[in-house]
Amino acid sequence: MKTRAAIAVAAGKPLEIAEVDLDGPRAGEVLVEIMATGICHTDAFTLSGDDPEGAFPAILGHEGAGIVREVGAGVTSVKPGDHVIPLYTPECRECNFCLHPKTNLCQAIRETQGQGVMPDGSSRFSLDGTPILHYMGCSTFSNFTVLPEIALAKVREDAPFDKICYIGCGVTTGVGAVVYRAQVEAGSNVVVFGLGGIGLNVIQGAAMVGAGKIIGVDINPAKVELARKFGMTDFINPTQVDNVVEAIQDLTGGGADYSFECIGNVDVMRQALECCHKGWGESYIIGVAGAGKEIATRPFQLVTGRSWHGVAFGGARGRTDVPKIVDWYMEGKINIDDLITHTMPLNDINKGFDLMHAGESIRSVVVY
Amino acid sequence: MKTRAAIAVAAGKPLEIAEVDLDGPRAGEVLVEIMATGICHTDAFTLSGDDPEGAFPAILGHEGAGIVREVGAGVTSVKPGDHVIPLYTPECRECNFCLHPKTNLCQAIRETQGQGVMPDGSSRFSLDGTPILHYMGCSTFSNFTVLPEIALAKVREDAPFDKICYIGCGVTTGVGAVVYRAQVEAGSNVVVFGLGGIGLNVIQGAAMVGAGKIIGVDINPAKVELARKFGMTDFINPTQVDNVVEAIQDLTGGGADYSFECIGNVDVMRQALECCHKGWGESYIIGVAGAGKEIATRPFQLVTGRSWHGVAFGGARGRTDVPKIVDWYMEGKINIDDLITHTMPLNDINKGFDLMHAGESIRSVVVY
Repeated sequence: MKTRAAIAVAAGKPLEIAEVDLDGPRAGEVLVEIMATGICHTDAFTLSGDDPEGAFPAILGHEGAGIVREVGAGVTSVKPGDHVIPLYTPECRECNFCLHPKTNLCQAIRETQGQGVMPDGSSRFSLDGTPILHYMGCSTFSNFTVLPEIALAKVREDAPFDKICYIGCGVTTGVGAVVYRAQVEAGSNVVVFGLGGIGLNVIQGAAMVGAGKIIGVDINPAKVELARKFGMTDFINPTQVDNVVEAIQDLTGGGADYSFECIGNVDVMRQALECCHKGWGESYIIGVAGAGKEIATRPFQLVTGRSWHGVAFGGARGRTDVPKIVDWYMEGKINIDDLITHTMPLNDINKGFDLMHAGESIRSVVVY
Repeated sequence: MKTRAAIAVAAGKPLEIAEVDLDGPRAGEVLVEIMATGICHTDAFTLSGDDPEGAFPAILGHEGAGIVREVGAGVTSVKPGDHVIPLYTPECRECNFCLHPKTNLCQAIRETQGQGVMPDGSSRFSLDGTPILHYMGCSTFSNFTVLPEIALAKVREDAPFDKICYIGCGVTTGVGAVVYRAQVEAGSNVVVFGLGGIGLNVIQGAAMVGAGKIIGVDINPAKVELARKFGMTDFINPTQVDNVVEAIQDLTGGGADYSFECIGNVDVMRQALECCHKGWGESYIIGVAGAGKEIATRPFQLVTGRSWHGVAFGGARGRTDVPKIVDWYMEGKINIDDLITHTMPLNDINKGFDLMHAGESIRSVVVY
């Protein structure tokens, strides 16, 4: 079949809209009509050429929502008409990662996904006979795409695609880090470094589970108003205190119970660890640091009871946990509407990237 | 009263045996007759002058066992005749650390303990009218000593003092790290860096809880035989493999479920983290690094699911957990006898330090 898609033809170039060829789903695969997709920093990172694993030409996009249109042989968990969110972290429920109680990092199709192809080693996309690569197993910058069955979370049908697509990455990354990975208890003091989209989702996750103080840290005071709306109780501007770690310790009576780094800055990661409470404070790295960057601290910080963690895709097991977040949105427990600052048709997708680079959007969503 | 004690008169000097004056227990305090005490590297560290918190003159020793001889006003949890192990990490059961489920680092008397005095700010020891400092709240290099009630674990009376004194520090530090802090599950693969006394106790803790592979890492092959007796299943000599992290990953099919650093070397701490299994491996720092030393790694190690921890006194809540380890020793579940390589009277305590420095002992014990 044919489908309209935005093609990343080469690093640093704008996406090109085109009709591409899409082969139908093979065994264990599913054809999905993407109804909406967010534009995430990770797409921009790969498009920039800085991603060492980036390859071109490819169809980017990994934060979508859509409807199953056709299933390949052997597919049993979804059927045509089902509403789904594509999962760049799949959940096969069979590999030793899925069967381990402490991780969500299913490895079933990791190798081929990293190569930009389906599990059988081939691409379903092509243009004029030349294959185009998949991206993060999703390729949601295409109106239709093919995914492995294990990479689809089935969700309720009354949820609006142009909102829940954000659950495909950003919302789950932030809310999930609190709820699924750190398992923050009610009353805990939480510190969030970076009040971008991920930070706001960490904040609302913390608010949802009844955290005590929810302290936001950002050098940009323009972010305070929305962060407060999402549940931030206190704000620290690092440029206006002598020592951000001490300011947090003062505000919390000793330090954070949980801290989350949502920037990708290794110096901030150190602050996020060291602001934790002696004895039990846990720090979680969500942000992606630059290539070759390292985190450091004195081991005494750990020996006296702080612990250092990281989290990917919010610790969520996609097929199991993503539908729950959709429910929370529909129940009004989390707010997505205020985070989707711009919507646009596929033809304008490059404007969405421009808005993001200019810091003018929290999330831009392409609606097909 | 008078008691014989070994006084650390100044940094770098041999201990001096003398009769010192000991005031009786005040409110909340307990007079204990120490029956045996281990000589630990931490005593040597302070005696060397390298410990920035070290102060002199002091009566060192923190790994003892003895009998309660007199209690001060208000003491209810022990009575004369009770057998006890002094606790350098006390357990008040009232501070916000004791009441937190994730830490054993009671802070009730931390400040005065660090200053070498009792909680009321004074010392019970003196010589010719000049106060002598307490050490780690214990001062077990004295035949009689005074401790706060909260710093005494009451233990069974059939346990031999000259063995269970080692539970006051080394045994609990190693066994507890596995059992209380990491809570290693049966079948888990465990890697232990450093096969000294702490490493051997980590190994036997792992064996006790049914760990799978128990891999010891040490540059000294002479340590293999005893480590195997304690439960080590595999040995890696870092000088005989190209890459110790890869060697561990190969041996475990992906990495350690749990690793423990029992040396105090920040480069080894990094290896201990990075040899952990993607997704769930947990690394625990037990060793004490040199002043100013820092640990480092790429944050990707954490984001992909490894976590970095530290542990002090094995995560044990002293009054609650130390008596259980005494039981395990008496039940034959852990082996202390083979770790106590030398015993000596107090007069020969400096020989015990010499044996330790020469690497000729695992644990020397002074028997009063």
